[in-house]
This record gives sequence, structure tokens and C-alpha cells, in this order.
Amino acid sequence: MSTYKLLLLPGDGIGPEVMAEVEKVVAWLGKAGLASFETEHGHVGGSAIDAHGKPLSDETLARADAADAILLGAVGGPKWNGIAYDLRPEAGLLRLRKDLGLFANLRPAICYPALAEASALKRELVEGLDIMIVRELTGGVYFGEPKEITTLEDGSKRAVDTQVYTTAEIERIAHVAFDLARKRSGRVASAEKNNVMKTGVLWKEVVTKVHAEHYAEVELEHVLADNCAMQLVRRPKQFDVLVTDNLFGDVLSDVAAMLTGSLGMLPSASLGAVDARGTRKALYEPVHGSAPDIAGKGYANPIAMIGSLAMCLRYSFGLGEAADLVEGAITKALASGARTRDIAGEGQDAISTTQMGDAIVREL
Amino acid sequence: MSTYKLLLLPGDGIGPEVMAEVEKVVAWLGKAGLASFETEHGHVGGSAIDAHGKPLSDETLARADAADAILLGAVGGPKWNGIAYDLRPEAGLLRLRKDLGLFANLRPAICYPALAEASALKRELVEGLDIMIVRELTGGVYFGEPKEITTLEDGSKRAVDTQVYTTAEIERIAHVAFDLARKRSGRVASAEKNNVMKTGVLWKEVVTKVHAEHYAEVELEHVLADNCAMQLVRRPKQFDVLVTDNLFGDVLSDVAAMLTGSLGMLPSASLGAVDARGTRKALYEPVHGSAPDIAGKGYANPIAMIGSLAMCLRYSFGLGEAADLVEGAITKALASGARTRDIAGEGQDAISTTQMGDAIVREL
Ligand SMILES: CC(C)[C@H](C(=O)O)[C@@H](O)C(=O)O
Ligand SMILES: CC(C)[C@H](C(=O)O)[C@@H](O)C(=O)O
Repeated sequence: MSTYKLLLLPGDGIGPEVMAEVEKVVAWLGKAGLASFETEHGHVGGSAIDAHGKPLSDETLARADAADAILLGAVGGPKWNGIAYDLRPEAGLLRLRKDLGLFANLRPAICYPALAEASALKRELVEGLDIMIVRELTGGVYFGEPKEITTLEDGSKRAVDTQVYTTAEIERIAHVAFDLARKRSGRVASAEKNNVMKTGVLWKEVVTKVHAEHYAEVELEHVLADNCAMQLVRRPKQFDVLVTDNLFGDVLSDVAAMLTGSLGMLPSASLGAVDARGTRKALYEPVHGSAPDIAGKGYANPIAMIGSLAMCLRYSFGLGEAADLVEGAITKALASGARTRDIAGEGQDAISTTQMGDAIVREL
Repeated sequence: MSTYKLLLLPGDGIGPEVMAEVEKVVAWLGKAGLASFETEHGHVGGSAIDAHGKPLSDETLARADAADAILLGAVGGPKWNGIAYDLRPEAGLLRLRKDLGLFANLRPAICYPALAEASALKRELVEGLDIMIVRELTGGVYFGEPKEITTLEDGSKRAVDTQVYTTAEIERIAHVAFDLARKRSGRVASAEKNNVMKTGVLWKEVVTKVHAEHYAEVELEHVLADNCAMQLVRRPKQFDVLVTDNLFGDVLSDVAAMLTGSLGMLPSASLGAVDARGTRKALYEPVHGSAPDIAGKGYANPIAMIGSLAMCLRYSFGLGEAADLVEGAITKALASGARTRDIAGEGQDAISTTQMGDAIVREL
């Protein structure tokens, strides 16, 4: 059995708390002989700023590059809000994504039956919801140049951001979406604003071409991003795989996540290209943020983080059965009534972060 | 009594149908001696392409410039999808906004009690909802240059869009938002992504400054656009006035509109700067689109269009009482059970576009 090198980057806020629970699962998998891991820890985000003055040190980046997979908690918090743009906690996360080439962000939005009641939407609209958002993660307005603020003669300012997409960037993310759709219900919706943006025109053109040339059996629909946001609220189950750019993906995946009523539950994977050896760089992190308001209180829900480990087992190591086992343990823990505060219904008792981690390990 | 020049641009799809109902209300107001209008008609969007090869002719633009206010139906449809980017129906609408300097887009999202059931959200979350979205409309990624697609040496392409904001552009939209908040509940939320975009950094900085210097009594909150989209779904009533840029405004206002469960009900105003004579250019249009699938069937709901006339009376002509009267007639028609198909509940009979227009005129 190969031993996988896992780099754990707990980050800020509730990041370290949820990461501690993942380590229990990692330890269990090792003992059970299902997977062998070598784990190391590093700093990213605010914790890295505090430790060595930058949100991501070159040394941590080198270790991330050498690892077989990275698990990340969350970055950011009010403590670092006032500081310069390029030194903020978020800059560390963005550099990790960009420098490792993690261009494909997979964000499942799944509504667990036991939690459908927690959604803002009417139960029948979200029960059984299972969307896979495929967000482009290393291009678009996040990284395009120029990206700057200049001061004009009269002392006023002018800020610029640039959204760039090339054929190659769109092609590779389209392939990820269509490949996923083949294993799912065979439907892809592609969201852009080709009525207003040239990047939207190219996006639509390239997705259409990739579809026609390689995936004729998959159903493809183009939808304007504003209408897509609306449709996610109106009738979310119409979507299966939804592919979109970095910025629209940021907003649309958050809307989709919120529909499930359980932000603390949703994992994500950020994947690079498959290399000659058949491996790919990958980072796994919960969709939720660092939630500084509840940090240190034991309220955080570790399920999104543990679910991210399950995605890691599946997408990085091909350990589908171990992934099923972990996901099954989450489902069983929920079915047995285990609830952190974020998902406890009225009159339900809430357990702590560590108790939830223990409850899941118990079901393994 | 002054006579106001109204330019009516019905546009495409259901645009002409809903515009016809507004004309009934305009006629009634004239006869009742409440306001005197001179109306003329023009083409915009696809209908203008069909009529003279462009989505907005210079002549129509000149008439728009000379009018006291413009009422617009909707533009676009599959008929014009394949044509060149700059000749599409949407280009006409964008040129109107830009050339007339209509920088402030006001989009109220109001949940009518009689219709709360139609929302995808649970009733208690949306009942009484009354948000005013203030969207910047003539800047950002919609108009920044470069905005182009270039072909690279290897035949692949590169698309670029540019988002630009200046201090002056942000200042004036911030003033609109804070002024509105003063007349409402005194709360403004400002949405951007300052963690990723330089335009977001400047946006936050300028809004903070305008607030501190002129509106200390208004409550200001900054929210990241992705989180804002989430919060709109999770707990929409936390918002009162929400100010944001052109692109985020496009998506967030559509989410907010959808929450009300009645897209056919929501009006909007797009306002220019107040000039030396105390007047301002203004265009009023429904939030809904041209809905080509139901065009010509008599299914369209004319309430958003008639509500847009009410906003026109209020914001362009200071005719607050006439505006109240029109809005009151809409509310009464709804209370008396008048329902077009889009808002008819199960077991409720639906009436046609013209019947709804007549029902509203009857309540005037
Ligand atoms: C923290 C921030 C930079 C990030 C983003 O905007 O991508 C976050 O919102 C996300 O979606 O992972
Ligand atoms: C039709 C389109 C150009 C327009 C926009 O993107 O602004 C529409 O979506 C809107 O919100 O008015």
C-alpha cells in the first residue's frame, strides 16, 4: 500500500478546530489499514502572517507542491482586515490555487434529507438536491492584469480589474464538467454573460465546441449568469453539473450552498491538470469560511472538512471505497441525531465540534 | 400643469403587450387631469434591428435625450441570438443607459402579501420583504476597455473584459443609496469583493468616506458579494438599501427579485445626474425580460411595467400622489383576486394581460 503525503493547512478561525477532527479520521483510516498517510502541518492565511509576515511562505508553497494532496481549513478574519491587499490572508489562498495550477473547483451542493428543513427554501424544492458546481479557479478577474489602483492628477483614484480567458483555459474546465456529467445525469449547464462580456462570448463558443466534438451524448444548456442565480432559487433541481467562470462561480456556488441549508456540511475539491504519471495536484477545503465569530467555542461543524477528506480519497487517491465509508459515517452520524449548532433544529440538542468528530469516527 | 414628454420604447417579446397596458393608465391620468403627457413611440433592441438594422438608431437616441422620461418594455430574443455582439438587442439598451448617463439603477424587491406563497422561500422569510437595490449602471465591466477577443498565433483566442471604477463614479452612486436610506429605514449594505478585486478595494474605501462625511446617522455595513448572495437567500429581511456595482448588481438584484416570487411584478428606475434645472434623465423598465416563450399569448403580467410608470411619476415628475394612486390600484386589483398566469396560485383563475390592465384602471 502506498503512503500518501498529506499537507494540512488549518488556517484561521474555526479552521484548526475542524482540521483536528479530520486528523481523527485520518488516524482511523491508517489504523484500519485502509490508507496510509504521512501528514505534516503548515501555515496559511492570517496564521502565516502572524508566523512569518506573509500569508503564504515560499517554504509552505514548496511543501504544498511536494505533497500528494492538501487539506485546508479556512483563511481570514477581522484581525487582518486593515492590512495591505497583497498581504491579506486571502492572498495566500489565491497564490496556492494559482501557483499549483488548481484550475478546477468542484463544489457539490447536496441537500441531506435529515436537514432539508434547515433550508430557506420550501422543502419540496430542495429535498434530494444534488448539484455539482464546476468553477474555473485560476483565471478570470481574480488574476488578470492590469489589477491596480492609480491616483489621478486631481487626487481622485481609478481602480482596474481585468478578466481574461483563453480558449485553452475554457477547454480544460469544460472537459472536467462534461466528464463529471457522464458519470452523473448527463446534463451540463454553462453560465456566463455573453450578452455583456467578451469573455462570455468566448466561453460560450468554446464550451459549445468541446461539447460538439467530444460529448454529443451529454445535454448542454447555456444560461445567462443572472438568470442562473434566479433559477437556482426558483427551481434548483433543474441543474445537475453547472460550469462557470471564477467570479460567477464564487457567487453561484455560494447561492447553491445556501440552498442546502447547511453550509457547515459542504466540501470542495480544487484540482490541477493530470500529469504524465497520472497524478494531479489537489487541494480540499470546506465551502464555509473561517467564521471568526464562533472560533474557539467548539460550535463549528467539522462535517464539511471531513467531507473534503472523503473527496480527497476519491479524487486524489482513487480510494472510492474509503471515501464511501467516510461519507457513510457522516450520514449515519446525522441519522443517529448528531447535530452541531448550525444544523440543530428547534428543540434538538447540539453537540460540540469534537463530539461530532467522535460521532463520525464511531460510525466508521 | 406642465405637459411631460414620454418616449415609449416597447422593444421585443412581451414588451409591446405590457406597454399597451401602461398606455391605458397614461390616458386615464391625462383624462383625470392628474398629469398631462405627450407620448411618442420608438424602436429599441430586436425590433429596432428589424426596422433599421441597429439596436438603437441615432434618431431614437436623440428623441430619448429630448424626452422628459423613457418607458422601456424589454429587449432580446432567440431571433437575434446568432448575430454579432455589438448588434444584438442588448447593445441598444446598454447604449441608452451609457449615452444618457443613467448611472443609478433602482430595483425595489417587494414581496406583496397576497403573493408571498409564490416565493420559493418559506413565507416567514419573505413576507413583508422590502429591499431597494441600488445598482451602478454605467461603469464596471459592462463598459471598461479593452473589451475584445483576439486570435493568437496558434489560432486559439483570448478574450478580455475590463472593470473600471473611479472615485467619482462610486461617490455619486453612494450618495443615491444613502439619500434613499434616509427616507427609508436608515440602513445601507454595500457589496463588493475587496478581498479579490481592486475595484472592490476602492469601492469600499469611497463608500466608507461618503458615509463618514455626509451620512453619519445612516447605518452602513460592508458585505462581500458572494456572502451577500447567500444572505439574500438565508435571511433577506436583514437588508434595506443594498448598493453594489454593475455586475454584482445584475446578479444580486435578480436573486432579490426572485425571492419575491413574482418577477412579473417588479419595476425599476434608471436615473441620471440632477442637472442645473433640477431635472434628470430617467428610464423606467420592468425587471423581467422579453419572455419570448410567452410573447403574443396574452399571458404577460403588466404590473411591473405599470409599476415602472408609478416610479416615473414619483422620481421624474415629483407626482407622489399620482404614483400612490397607481400603486394603490395595483394593490387593490390584486386584493380583488386579479391574477395573471405567473402569479395565479393553484386553483386560481388567471386573466389575460389586457384584463389585468383593465382591472387596474378600474381601481384608479
Ligand atoms: C476567500 C476568497 C478569496 C474566496 C474566493 O473568492 O474565491 C472564497 O470566497 C471562496 O469562494 O473560496
Ligand atoms: C439585458 C442585459 C444587458 C441586462 C444587464 O445585464 O444589465 C439585464 O440583465 C438587466 O439586468 O437589465
